[in-house]
Amino acid sequence: MNIDLNCDLGEGFGDWRMGEDTALLDIVSSANIACGFHAGDPATMRRTCEMAVEHSVSIGAHIGFRDLVGFGRRNIDITPGDLKDETLYQISALAGFAHAAGSAVTYVKPHGALYHSASQSAELADAIVSAMTESSNSLALLGPPLSHLQKAAELHGIEFVSEGFADRSYTRFGKLTPRTEPGAVLADPESATAQAIDLASTGTVITADGITISMPVKSICVHGDSPGAVTMAKSIKAGLINARIRVEAFA
Amino acid sequence: MNIDLNCDLGEGFGDWRMGEDTALLDIVSSANIACGFHAGDPATMRRTCEMAVEHSVSIGAHIGFRDLVGFGRRNIDITPGDLKDETLYQISALAGFAHAAGSAVTYVKPHGALYHSASQSAELADAIVSAMTESSNSLALLGPPLSHLQKAAELHGIEFVSEGFADRSYTRFGKLTPRTEPGAVLADPESATAQAIDLASTGTVITADGITISMPVKSICVHGDSPGAVTMAKSIKAGLINARIRVEAFA
Amino acid sequence: MNIDLNCDLGEGFGDWRMGEDTALLDIVSSANIACGFHAGDPATMRRTCEMAVEHSVSIGAHIGFRDLVGFGRRNIDITPGDLKDETLYQISALAGFAHAAGSAVTYVKPHGALYHSASQSAELADAIVSAMTESSNSLALLGPPLSHLQKAAELHGIEFVSEGFADRSYTRFGKLTPRTEPGAVLADPESATAQAIDLASTGTVITADGITISMPVKSICVHGDSPGAVTMAKSIKAGLINARIRVEAFA
Amino acid sequence: MNIDLNCDLGEGFGDWRMGEDTALLDIVSSANIACGFHAGDPATMRRTCEMAVEHSVSIGAHIGFRDLVGFGRRNIDITPGDLKDETLYQISALAGFAHAAGSAVTYVKPHGALYHSASQSAELADAIVSAMTESSNSLALLGPPLSHLQKAAELHGIEFVSEGFADRSYTRFGKLTPRTEPGAVLADPESATAQAIDLASTGTVITADGITISMPVKSICVHGDSPGAVTMAKSIKAGLINARIRVEAFA
Repeated sequence: MNIDLNCDLGEGFGDWRMGEDTALLDIVSSANIACGFHAGDPATMRRTCEMAVEHSVSIGAHIGFRDLVGFGRRNIDITPGDLKDETLYQISALAGFAHAAGSAVTYVKPHGALYHSASQSAELADAIVSAMTESSNSLALLGPPLSHLQKAAELHGIEFVSEGFADRSYTRFGKLTPRTEPGAVLADPESATAQAIDLASTGTVITADGITISMPVKSICVHGDSPGAVTMAKSIKAGLINARIRVEAFA
Repeated sequence: MNIDLNCDLGEGFGDWRMGEDTALLDIVSSANIACGFHAGDPATMRRTCEMAVEHSVSIGAHIGFRDLVGFGRRNIDITPGDLKDETLYQISALAGFAHAAGSAVTYVKPHGALYHSASQSAELADAIVSAMTESSNSLALLGPPLSHLQKAAELHGIEFVSEGFADRSYTRFGKLTPRTEPGAVLADPESATAQAIDLASTGTVITADGITISMPVKSICVHGDSPGAVTMAKSIKAGLINARIRVEAFA
Repeated sequence: MNIDLNCDLGEGFGDWRMGEDTALLDIVSSANIACGFHAGDPATMRRTCEMAVEHSVSIGAHIGFRDLVGFGRRNIDITPGDLKDETLYQISALAGFAHAAGSAVTYVKPHGALYHSASQSAELADAIVSAMTESSNSLALLGPPLSHLQKAAELHGIEFVSEGFADRSYTRFGKLTPRTEPGAVLADPESATAQAIDLASTGTVITADGITISMPVKSICVHGDSPGAVTMAKSIKAGLINARIRVEAFA
Repeated sequence: MNIDLNCDLGEGFGDWRMGEDTALLDIVSSANIACGFHAGDPATMRRTCEMAVEHSVSIGAHIGFRDLVGFGRRNIDITPGDLKDETLYQISALAGFAHAAGSAVTYVKPHGALYHSASQSAELADAIVSAMTESSNSLALLGPPLSHLQKAAELHGIEFVSEGFADRSYTRFGKLTPRTEPGAVLADPESATAQAIDLASTGTVITADGITISMPVKSICVHGDSPGAVTMAKSIKAGLINARIRVEAFA
C-alpha cells in the first residue's frame, strides 16, 4: 500500500517567507511550488526546486491567481482564455527551474481561490487542462475528487490524481465540512492521522456524523502554514509508516 | 548575402497596446517578444508567438527588468544571482507559448536598461548566459558587438549574434553616438536604409564624422514604437531586397 | 438648466497611454482620475490633475480593483474591510496631487467591475462610503441611480450624484440594456445627443422599447477610450449647449 | 535631556509579515511606516497607524522604491521627476490612514536604497523635499546628518532631523563603518546602549578606532527585522531611561 503526501511550498516572495519548507520536504512526497502569481519569486522557485530534488520530492506547479496581496485566496473573475494563458505561463516558468535542478514538473495543482473556482466551473477547469496539454511536459492534475477538474482531465486524457485531507472532516456527501461549522477541522494530530490511514488504506473516511463513506484518493494534502503544521505532518507520516503504508509520489 | 532584421514586439500589457505588431511582422525576420517583466502579459505573449509563427518570424525572449511602470528602461541594481533567476523565469515562460504555437524560443535579447547594463558588466552578462545554458532550448544571444554579452556568450559556448542599428549613427570607435549629441539619430529613411545596406553587404558603417569602419553584424534592429517606425522599417527592408540582400532570421 | 459631464481620464500607466485626455478635458466638467490600482501611475496622476485644473474640470477619485492587467474590469472577491482600506488609500493618494495642483478631490466614482459590484452589494457600497467619510476631503459619490451605492451614501450623509449614459439604451425598468442585446449601444452621435438632452432637460429617457421613463440624473458619463469617443463627446456637448443646457460640474 | 527612537514598522504585505511591530511600538517614539511601494498594503497601513496612535508613537512616511520583490533595497535609476511624484503619492496615501486613526503624518524617512541614493544625490534629495512641500501636512525629514537630504531640507525650509545608529560603529569621518568591515555592527546590547547614551547625552560617538567625534543627532534608529532586535531595542531604551534621558518623538 502507498499514498502520496503533498504540501504547498515556496510561498515566500522576496524577503518575505512563509511556512517551514525545509522541515516539510523531509515529510512529503510531492511539492506544490508557487509560480510567481500568488507567491514565489524566481529565486524562491529555483531554491525550492533544488531542495525538492535533494529530498527526492516531486515538483508540481502550484498555479494561482495573479494576486500577491490576496495570496491567491480571492476569486478573480477571469476569462477561460486568460486562465489558459496564465496557466501555461506559470507551468512553463516553473518548468525552467525544475529542469535546471535536474528534474521536471510532473503535475499541476491550482491554489486557493482558483482551486475552488476551477473545481466548480467546467470552463475554468477546461482552461487549466487545455494549457496543460500544451506544455512540453507530461503532466498530471491534482485536485478534489468528483470535481470539474477531474472531468476536464478525463476529457482531455490527462491523468487525474484525487486528493483528500487528513485534518478536515467530510460530510456524508463527500464534501469538506465548511470551515464555518463546528468540527470542520481535525486539530489534534491523532484524529488527523487516523483519517489519513483510513484514506490511504481503505479509501474511506468517517464523516463528521459518523458514517463511513468511500473516498478513493491517491494523495493527501498536508498544510504547511499554520502553527503546529510540521508536528501534524510528522504525526501523519509516522502513522502511515507505522500502518505499513508507503509514502511516495504518485508521479 | 543575407541579414536578419529584429524588432521588439508584444510590448502591450493588458488593455494597453504599444507598437504596430502586425505591420512589423510583415517586415522583420526575428521578433524580440516581451516576457511579462517590463511588458507583455500571458495573453499578449501567446498572441504574439502565434503571429510570429504565422509570419515565419523567429521568436526571441526579450528579457527585461521587473519594472512595468518604467518599461524596463531604468536600471535596477540587481544581483547576478537574481538576474540569472529572472532570466530563466522569463525565457521559460515564453518558451511555453512558443511551443504551444508550434515553434520554439531560439534566442535571447536583453531589453532597455538591462541591455545596456549587461553589455557593460561581466557579472550581469554571465548571469544571463548562465541562465540560457540552463534552458532546455538551444539559444543564441543577440546583443551589441564587443560587449560583455559577447564575451560571456563565447565563454559559455553560446552562439552570439551581434546587432547593428540602421537609424543610429556610430562614432569612429564603433559605439553609438549618444542620443544627446546632434546627428545621433538617422531620422530620414534614405540614410537609415543606406546604412542598413552597408552593414549587411560590407559589414561596415560610415561614422558620424565620415570614416568607414568595420561593423560586422548579423542582425539589424529596427524600432517599432516611434511615429514613422513602420515607414522606416519598410524602407530598410525594401532597400535591402533591392540591393539583393535576403532578409532572413539568423536562427 | 445645467448638467455635469464626467469622463474617465488618466488611464495610462508608465509609457502606455489610453484615451484622448487633452481633447476630452475641453468637453467634460468632471474628470474621473485613475489612482494607480487599475491604471494611473503617480506621474500620470499629477499631470492629469494639473490638466484638469487648467481646464477648470472637477477632480474625482476613480477608484478600482488592484488589477493592472485586467484594467479593473474583472471582479475580485474582496472583503469589505480590504475595500475600505484600498478606497481610502486611493482617494488619499490622488488628493495629494489634486492639492499640489491647487485643487482638491471632490468626489469618488468606482471603476469597472468595482462600479458594478458595489452597486449591487450593500456591504461593498458601505465599505466605499465609510472610507469616504474618513477622508479629510468633503466628497460626493458618483454612481448609478437606485443602487446600493446611493443607499450607502444616503445612510452615511454623503452627497450622492446619480449618473446616466448618453450612448447606452435603457430598459423600461430603468436598467441599462445588457451589451449582449441588440440596441444596447447608441452608436450614432445624434441618438446619443438626443438622449443626453432628454436626461438633462426633463430627467427622462426613452427606453429601447419606446417608453418614456423617469431618469433624474445629475451627471452624464461620456466614454473616452473607444474610437470616435471624442467625436461623440463633442456632439453631446454641442447638443446640450444648443439646447441651452449649461455643462458644469456638480461639485 | 531627550531623544527620539525610530523604527521601521508595517513592513508586511498581504499575508506576509515582517518584524515584531507590537513589541517595538512599546519601545520607540517614531514609527517609519511603509507606504505600499517596497512593503505595506492598505490594510497593514491602517492597522499600523492605529497601533501607533494607541502607543502615542509619531507616524512617519517610510517612502521607498516601487520594488516589492527587492524590498526597496536595490537602487532604481529613477528620474527626479518620477521620485517627486512617487514621494507625494506615498506620503498622501499614508496621510489618509494617519488621519483616519486620529493623527497625522509628521515626518518622512526614505527607506533602503532610496535612503542611500537620496543622501548622496542633490537632485534626488531635492525631489523628495519638493514633494514634501506640496503635501498638506507639515512634515519633517528624517535622515543621515551632513547628507544631501539635510541640505535639501534646509534649502526648502523643511525641518531636518538627523539620525544616528546605536548598533553601528562610525569612522572618524562621521560615516558608518561599511558592513563589509570588521566591527561595523555593535552586536551586543551593552555596547549599542552605551553608544545610544553618548549620542543622546553628549551628541558624540566613539569611533571604531577610539576617537570621540561630534555626532549631534535628534533621533536614533533601532532595527526591527533581525533576530534579537526587540531585545536590543529594549536594552537601548532601558539604558536611556536609566541615564535620565527621556525617549520622546521629535515631532
